[in-house]
Amino acid sequence: MTTGFIAETTGLLERTPQVLRALLVGLPEAWTDTPDSSDGWRPRDVVGHLITGEETDWMARTRRILEQGTSVPFDRVNRVAMLNRDAGVPLDDLVERFAKLRADNLAALGDLVTDADLDRRGLHPALGEVTLRELLATWAVHDLDHIGQIYTGMAGSHDTDVGPWKAYLGILLRRDDPSAVAG
Amino acid sequence: MTTGFIAETTGLLERTPQVLRALLVGLPEAWTDTPDSSDGWRPRDVVGHLITGEETDWMARTRRILEQGTSVPFDRVNRVAMLNRDAGVPLDDLVERFAKLRADNLAALGDLVTDADLDRRGLHPALGEVTLRELLATWAVHDLDHIGQIYTGMAGSHDTDVGPWKAYLGILLRRDDPSAVAG
Repeated sequence: MTTGFIAETTGLLERTPQVLRALLVGLPEAWTDTPDSSDGWRPRDVVGHLITGEETDWMARTRRILEQGTSVPFDRVNRVAMLNRDAGVPLDDLVERFAKLRADNLAALGDLVTDADLDRRGLHPALGEVTLRELLATWAVHDLDHIGQIYTGMAGSHDTDVGPWKAYLGILLRRDDPSAVAG
Repeated sequence: MTTGFIAETTGLLERTPQVLRALLVGLPEAWTDTPDSSDGWRPRDVVGHLITGEETDWMARTRRILEQGTSVPFDRVNRVAMLNRDAGVPLDDLVERFAKLRADNLAALGDLVTDADLDRRGLHPALGEVTLRELLATWAVHDLDHIGQIYTGMAGSHDTDVGPWKAYLGILLRRDDPSAVAG
């Protein structure tokens, strides 16, 4: 295994479809039909948001950096595109759609980018100048952030089943009050 | 698939080893050597804590309920037993140790318990009377809580790499201030 930044980052990114399959495919709906907060997302909404990222965000922005640098800002991403687009699509199908897109994107990334490109710059419409390194790190941490959100929704689906143990389960306490307990 | 509570709960519990393998085994250490908070746990500490649960908590308490009801309280669990016990053990080995213990425990659970037992009661040393249903639900949500903690540590390992995008990544903002952003 190479130990460069791109290998380290894709080493995480390529795992996400496997994790989502192991976690979600075939799981009883009793675990998967609850949002992470009162105005939050269910696991299927999170997977849909990850699909949007594969379709319109990470590789589109990588290409923009490589082709146009900071001369043209990134296009904005519709964070909630999945809510209409994916209505009625089974969760298991969303996971497989995501897996295919992710695999295609990592193959394209491998063809397009080397560690020598990581300091190249692009223009984020709100954040200003960013590097390709920051974009790729964000792609990976964005996965972690949203899979954490899936875990929170899944825990919330059994909020009352745990009875008095809720007092020890930060993932449930934070759904009611984000400042209740660190974690 | 049966749709009873035990089937639903074990349907989640049996996935955790697969998720941990997909997420952690072989992952570069750059992702796995950071705790979820300044006084928190690294992914290896979390897996060690899950091992302790398999060895001394969930099935021991299930048996205590079945054999002694509320007449003898549960033994307390050492939440930090892993910090000394597992020092120097490779993370990948911890994942496999956990997987073996979890498989054995789910097999034992299947032999010992049916949905007809779920209202049987035990005595928690701090929380008082609890049901077997609550114990088993807590086993599953405890998995979700601690895997969420693994995700937070992994995200934290790349806190600075994301540059200005940190402002959009709740999983990083909450490491600095739990009340910074809901999720």
